Amino acid sequence: MLPDSSQALGRLKPSVRALRAYLLGAPVTARKLNQNEAPSDLAEDLRREILARAARLPWHRYPAFVPSELCARIAERHDWAPEGVLVGNGSNEVIQATLTVAIGPGDVVVAPEPTFSLYRLLTGVAGGRFVAVPLGPDFRFDVDAISRTAASEAARAVIVNSPNNPTGSVLPAGAVERLLGETEALVLCDEAYQEFGGHSAIGLLRQSARLVVFRTFSKAIGLAGLRFGYALAHPDVVREISKAKLPYNVNAITLAAAEVVLEHVDRLAERTREIVAERERFVGRLAELPGLRAFPTEANFVLIRFETLPATTVFERLVRDFDILVRNVSHGPQLEGCLRISIGTPDDMDAVIAALKRLLTGDP
Amino acid sequence: MLPDSSQALGRLKPSVRALRAYLLGAPVTARKLNQNEAPSDLAEDLRREILARAARLPWHRYPAFVPSELCARIAERHDWAPEGVLVGNGSNEVIQATLTVAIGPGDVVVAPEPTFSLYRLLTGVAGGRFVAVPLGPDFRFDVDAISRTAASEAARAVIVNSPNNPTGSVLPAGAVERLLGETEALVLCDEAYQEFGGHSAIGLLRQSARLVVFRTFSKAIGLAGLRFGYALAHPDVVREISKAKLPYNVNAITLAAAEVVLEHVDRLAERTREIVAERERFVGRLAELPGLRAFPTEANFVLIRFETLPATTVFERLVRDFDILVRNVSHGPQLEGCLRISIGTPDDMDAVIAALKRLLTGDP
Repeated sequence: MLPDSSQALGRLKPSVRALRAYLLGAPVTARKLNQNEAPSDLAEDLRREILARAARLPWHRYPAFVPSELCARIAERHDWAPEGVLVGNGSNEVIQATLTVAIGPGDVVVAPEPTFSLYRLLTGVAGGRFVAVPLGPDFRFDVDAISRTAASEAARAVIVNSPNNPTGSVLPAGAVERLLGETEALVLCDEAYQEFGGHSAIGLLRQSARLVVFRTFSKAIGLAGLRFGYALAHPDVVREISKAKLPYNVNAITLAAAEVVLEHVDRLAERTREIVAERERFVGRLAELPGLRAFPTEANFVLIRFETLPATTVFERLVRDFDILVRNVSHGPQLEGCLRISIGTPDDMDAVIAALKRLLTGDP
Repeated sequence: MLPDSSQALGRLKPSVRALRAYLLGAPVTARKLNQNEAPSDLAEDLRREILARAARLPWHRYPAFVPSELCARIAERHDWAPEGVLVGNGSNEVIQATLTVAIGPGDVVVAPEPTFSLYRLLTGVAGGRFVAVPLGPDFRFDVDAISRTAASEAARAVIVNSPNNPTGSVLPAGAVERLLGETEALVLCDEAYQEFGGHSAIGLLRQSARLVVFRTFSKAIGLAGLRFGYALAHPDVVREISKAKLPYNVNAITLAAAEVVLEHVDRLAERTREIVAERERFVGRLAELPGLRAFPTEANFVLIRFETLPATTVFERLVRDFDILVRNVSHGPQLEGCLRISIGTPDDMDAVIAALKRLLTGDP
C-alpha cells in the first residue's frame, strides 16, 4: 500500500503538473528507424581504443571538473575559444541549462513549429511562455514571421533547429544573421543534424555574443548511447550557463570516447557522406510510390505524409507485418498523416520501400 | 577578437548572474582526500565484467527510455516500488530535477548549515529563497529549529543531508518523521553517505508521499567517475520529477555498470566496513594530536578545526610538503579554521597523521 499523494503533489509547481511528460514507449523490432541514430556502430578499432582507455581510468575518482583538453580539441575543430565550449551529457543537457539561466516566469521563447518537442517542455519547466511560429509551405522556415514574432513578443530567446526535426527543412542562408540583427533575443541554434545538411551558425559566434550553438555526438557521430553534446558561445555566456549545469555532468568513459572520436573525425565524415547518399537514393525511390508525399530533407531522416492510408495504420503495419519501427509524429501540430523515417542501412531502406509498396499498392 | 557580451548577459536572469558558480580547482597530488571518493577502485573482476557488457552494447543506439530492469533491482534492494525509482546522472541530477519541479520564484527551501553547497546554488537557479538553519554545538542537527523554521517560513521543501557534508553529523532517530509530521514541506533526504552511518529514511516512504530520498553510487559504491544516482519517492511524485529530467540521462555503459554492481552489493558492503574501521582508527589517532579538534563523524570523512595554525596554511603545506590534497572548507559558514579529510587507504591516513604531527608539533 502506498500513501496518499495528493498533499505531496500540491507542493509541486502547477505549471509542471500541467505539462505532458516527454514519453517514448516503443516496440522492439529488427529494423529501428525511429530515433535518427547512426545506422551502424563505430568501427571496431575505435570501439577497442575507447574500451582500452576506459580500462585505464580510475572509476572511483570524479571526472575532471573541466575537461580542458577535450574542450580545447572541440574548440580547435570549430575554430573557436576553448573557454567558449561547455560539454554536456547529451546536447539536451546544455540546451536545458541555457534555458534555465535565460528563461524565468513569463519570459517568451519563440520557435518554429513543428520542431523538436523538448523545447516546449523545457520552456514550460522553466516557467516561460512558448510561442510557436508555423513553418511555411513544405515546412520551409518562415524567417520573416519568426523575426517579427520575436520582436513583437520581446522574446528572451529564439530556438531554431536546422535541419529541423521532424521536418528535415533547413534555415535559408543569412537567416541567423537576420534573427541576431532584427531581434534582441538570444538566438539558440540546435545543430544536432548539421553534418547532414544546411549551414552552420558557428562562424557567427565571432559577431554576436547572443548566439549559442548546440552540437551532439548522438546523430552523425553515432554515440547516442554514450551521451555527449556541447554548447558553443561567448566565454562570458558559457560561464553563466555553467551555473545551471551540474558539476561532473559527463562521465569519465564518455569523455574518453569523445576524445577518441575527435581524433578520427574524418573517418566519421565518410560515414556521414554515405548516409546522405542513401537518403538521396531513398527519397528518389519514395517518389515512385503512390499515396505519399515526402518533404524535402537535408537531415538523416525523411518526413512523409500518407494520403491514402491513416499514418497510424501504416506505422502499426510496418511494426507488425514488416518488423520495422519508424516514428509516428502524426499527432503533432501540422503533422496530420505524417511519419518520420530515419535513414538506416541500404538494406533497411530497401526493406522500407518494399514494405510501403506492399502497403500502398497491395503489390507483393 | 570576441564580440562584446554585455547585451547577451543582459538577456540572462539577474538571479543567476548574482550566483557564484560551483567551482573546484584542485592541484594534482599523490594522495587525493578531497572529494570523499572510495579509496580504491572496484575489484578487477567487476571492472572486467562491466567492460565486457559495455563491449556488447550498441553505442549508436539511445539507452532504454526507462531502464526497467535496473529500476526493479534498485526497488528490490530497498523494498520499494519500481515506479518509485528515478535514475540520474549522479544523484545531483535527480536533486536538481526535484527542486526544479517544486521550487519557483520566492519559494522557500530550508536546510541546515553548513551543508553541501549545491543545495543553495540549485535553489538560487530555480529562483527560490534558501533559508539556512545553523547546526548546533559540535555541528549536531537542531531538529527543533529546522522544524520551526520550515513551519514559520511555510517552506516548500526541507533538505537534509545525513550524514551531513562537510560535518559528518547525522540526524537523530525520529527526525525525518518529525519533519514530515510537523511541517507541510517536501522533505528531501540526501543519503549520499548513508552506508557509512546513521539511519536511512527509506522505510518512511510508505508513510508519506512528501518524502524524497536520494542515493548515489559515487561514495560507498565507488563509481564517482561513471556518474550514477537515484531518487526514491512515491510513484506519482516520481512521475512529476521526471518531467524536469532529460530523456536518456544515464548513458548505456553506466547503466550496465550499475547492474553489475547491484549484483555484487555484498562485496561492496565489506569495503564500506573497512572504510568505517579505518575512520575510527584515524579519529583515534587524531585525538592524540595537539592543536586540532575533530568533530564526531559517521561519514567517510572527518571535519577538523585547527586551533594553532590557520587552516589554509595547513591545507597548503599538506599539498606542498606532503603531496596530500584535502578539502579546504574554512571559508564556509561556521567553518572557520576547518579542513575536511576523506578516509583513504590505511597508508593514506598514516601519511596524514604523520604530516599533521609534523606540522602541529614540529616533530619529525
